[in-house]
Amino acid sequence: MPVDINCDMGESFGAYQIGADDAVLPHITSANIACGFHGGDPTVMRNTVAAASKLGVAIGAHPSLPDLVGFGRRAMQVTAQEVYDLMIYQIGALLGFTRAAGVALRHVKPHGALYNMAAAQQPLADAIARAVRDVDSELILFGLAGNYMLTAAKRAGIRAASEVFADRNYLKDGALVPRSRPDAMVLDVEEAVRRAIRMVREGVVADVEGNDMPIRADTICVHGDGPHAPEIARALREGFGAAGIQVLAISAPNQ
Amino acid sequence: MPVDINCDMGESFGAYQIGADDAVLPHITSANIACGFHGGDPTVMRNTVAAASKLGVAIGAHPSLPDLVGFGRRAMQVTAQEVYDLMIYQIGALLGFTRAAGVALRHVKPHGALYNMAAAQQPLADAIARAVRDVDSELILFGLAGNYMLTAAKRAGIRAASEVFADRNYLKDGALVPRSRPDAMVLDVEEAVRRAIRMVREGVVADVEGNDMPIRADTICVHGDGPHAPEIARALREGFGAAGIQVLAISAPNQ
Amino acid sequence: MPVDINCDMGESFGAYQIGADDAVLPHITSANIACGFHGGDPTVMRNTVAAASKLGVAIGAHPSLPDLVGFGRRAMQVTAQEVYDLMIYQIGALLGFTRAAGVALRHVKPHGALYNMAAAQQPLADAIARAVRDVDSELILFGLAGNYMLTAAKRAGIRAASEVFADRNYLKDGALVPRSRPDAMVLDVEEAVRRAIRMVREGVVADVEGNDMPIRADTICVHGDGPHAPEIARALREGFGAAGIQVLAISAPNQ
Amino acid sequence: MPVDINCDMGESFGAYQIGADDAVLPHITSANIACGFHGGDPTVMRNTVAAASKLGVAIGAHPSLPDLVGFGRRAMQVTAQEVYDLMIYQIGALLGFTRAAGVALRHVKPHGALYNMAAAQQPLADAIARAVRDVDSELILFGLAGNYMLTAAKRAGIRAASEVFADRNYLKDGALVPRSRPDAMVLDVEEAVRRAIRMVREGVVADVEGNDMPIRADTICVHGDGPHAPEIARALREGFGAAGIQVLAISAPNQ
Repeated sequence: MPVDINCDMGESFGAYQIGADDAVLPHITSANIACGFHGGDPTVMRNTVAAASKLGVAIGAHPSLPDLVGFGRRAMQVTAQEVYDLMIYQIGALLGFTRAAGVALRHVKPHGALYNMAAAQQPLADAIARAVRDVDSELILFGLAGNYMLTAAKRAGIRAASEVFADRNYLKDGALVPRSRPDAMVLDVEEAVRRAIRMVREGVVADVEGNDMPIRADTICVHGDGPHAPEIARALREGFGAAGIQVLAISAPNQ
Repeated sequence: MPVDINCDMGESFGAYQIGADDAVLPHITSANIACGFHGGDPTVMRNTVAAASKLGVAIGAHPSLPDLVGFGRRAMQVTAQEVYDLMIYQIGALLGFTRAAGVALRHVKPHGALYNMAAAQQPLADAIARAVRDVDSELILFGLAGNYMLTAAKRAGIRAASEVFADRNYLKDGALVPRSRPDAMVLDVEEAVRRAIRMVREGVVADVEGNDMPIRADTICVHGDGPHAPEIARALREGFGAAGIQVLAISAPNQ
Repeated sequence: MPVDINCDMGESFGAYQIGADDAVLPHITSANIACGFHGGDPTVMRNTVAAASKLGVAIGAHPSLPDLVGFGRRAMQVTAQEVYDLMIYQIGALLGFTRAAGVALRHVKPHGALYNMAAAQQPLADAIARAVRDVDSELILFGLAGNYMLTAAKRAGIRAASEVFADRNYLKDGALVPRSRPDAMVLDVEEAVRRAIRMVREGVVADVEGNDMPIRADTICVHGDGPHAPEIARALREGFGAAGIQVLAISAPNQ
Repeated sequence: MPVDINCDMGESFGAYQIGADDAVLPHITSANIACGFHGGDPTVMRNTVAAASKLGVAIGAHPSLPDLVGFGRRAMQVTAQEVYDLMIYQIGALLGFTRAAGVALRHVKPHGALYNMAAAQQPLADAIARAVRDVDSELILFGLAGNYMLTAAKRAGIRAASEVFADRNYLKDGALVPRSRPDAMVLDVEEAVRRAIRMVREGVVADVEGNDMPIRADTICVHGDGPHAPEIARALREGFGAAGIQVLAISAPNQ
């Protein structure tokens, strides 16, 4: 059973650099490319599509709420229709660049507050899934393991990938421990790799209280904006290799 | 020999309404839909695609420099590469909406200052034509009659439509009389219709000094933001009909 | 006991016109001028300051969350510190224009979602009041009658104006009936004027269930973006006149 | 004769960090703080005002054309009136923060393309000087030595500071050698310091052809976005000290 490693990419903007894309790209198999609403701009998008496709990394859209100054991390009161429209616009914009580069657009992963809002509000999850399907029904939607977005994808008739986080702790209901809590993160890289391998191979993870719970890991997220992103990406890749787990982008339905 | 009537559409933004799209749409055959950089927003784009396709009006992208407060009318110092990237982004964004609506994206017409800059700077015209081709080589590029954009389209291997203006006067070199001059506009609607018919049927127009010059009219532009846009669109449509000139969207290369 | 009539002004943006500022201005005594975050731009701000001061209308800042496409009407997850900073920036920007015009900046009224959020979250109300004070401790803060913003102003040591709405119905706790309810608005202009007079003269208003409740009316709001804004503003002005109620901008503390 | 050392500051935006403000601040005497149009946001502005005033560094506004993605470096076709309005808005916004912090706003230095356009188009220089005066007639306008902005300040009746660049070469007409030329920069730090000392003490600088020309150095600019900004700032400060030149912010007219 292979696993995919994904990371947010292309979040620089104009004169502003963020992330360590060049150092992370060699270790991952899916790049979630920002679409201009929380980060990214047309030039960054073109360059990131080129860099990812040169290394054979699968390309996905990483759409956001329209909040550049807040980096897409602040919840906003948006309707399902507004979310649908925001998604279509941003997926389409990235599709322009993948078509221009002659490469495939493979997946969509909502960013920041939009990802979290969709994990808590089913109508938003449904709007996201329908938008993805309406641009291209072969796109794969990445959503939090055990959550609304995965069922929304099923309802919309598209494929979903169940996403897990090696470096985050989970509540017993499967939600992530909020970043405001001191135990939100798994800071030890080796521990994070061990957790990741267990999620992939055994389909379980220990929640924050120490009890195992089932979890499905189609794709594992590396946070691209942390200072240790390249190190973590490399450790995961090597850890999976040593454990005999194949690391591969998720194949499209028709493959 | 048929002619196309085009008009800029979908330039409203959020709470702000501009133009008389509903009144103009029944009279035109091609809608140039704003893509969010000078006007338009994701919701306006979706609604405008729906309104145009409901009436069988061909849909095109109307990309701009990034200047919402200046409505895309202010020249900016941009490189050919920046123009290429801006075009890909915006055409792609509209492509998202046409795919979601299950209708074709047929043409591209740059907006405002970008249209004028491309008419004066060949590298920008070439960047525009390449961007259009790279998103979809069957798209038709609308450019000022006799100008760089048409030759740029030829060089890029895509089809171009030679655009004329019924209500603008021309200098003897084929450029439009600048809006700052008092004789920039043809204010009389009947006179504008007569000029339009002559451009289509005879391939000539009188320049501002009264001398006929050759001009190719594949598509004729109605300015959507003027107060009389619906009246002019209707008069042109009726005038062409009375003159036995068929009004049709420009067919795609493979039709 | 005089009353002030206030209206949101200067919400046009670039090529986009909104509101009927010229028709409303002669009837009001306080203009809340948009500061560029939900509407308004530097040129509109300068023009609106000039138009208001020409008619002797008191000038106030009308700051908003940063949401141009949503016209500042969508709640966002912002911290008290972010609100403080947003307020300082926008009040300062308008202060630039009043200084340049040689007129006084007199009051501040938060816009849309920011007004509503401050009415429900005391830390945001406090941040707003401190920001107003920190730019100029003689500024008057407009807030919903009976609400947090008024007590926040008191805590910050600045003067507040208790704001009422002639054309909105009230719940029995003093909150406005949400716009989503069919009985949110008082649609009859004469009825609205009668309610306004009663609020000013008697200090009471009938809530939506028909029971009188006390209310303090220092300033009464006319919604500038409705189609009947000029008519309502004129009716209020004339109604107050006929009732012998003086209509005056709220005087500054040191007057 | 003292000299001022100025540097652009507060150009970070949201999640994006740029510049080395903390390392540069101890060595300079005037901070030009970005106002949100090319960089900076309300929170960054507040923090930068606090950091500068803590070290006794004089605070100035650093307004720009509205071009965040281009970092204010792209020329735009703007009218003198638009420039006046842009300036008032941004100076006012920063004035909000200096008032809130209880510190003085001392100077204004236009950013990037706006600085360069004003150095080439006298009407824009005049608009800038009038805007500065209209917000506060005691503000000092920083402009390129020998250029329009200095005469525009005189015409507007405000004080100007003649700005020089230690690390840039000059053409014989006093303009900076364009960055596109290989000899635009003075790369050697010691050479830059020697040139700076000579400009201050002797009032001359060698142009790019090696001939001395007169130049007035009231303030010397350190580029904050280069990788060696802290090193250059420190070397200048130490070089001036060793040469017995006092480094001081420019005093306001009434001091």
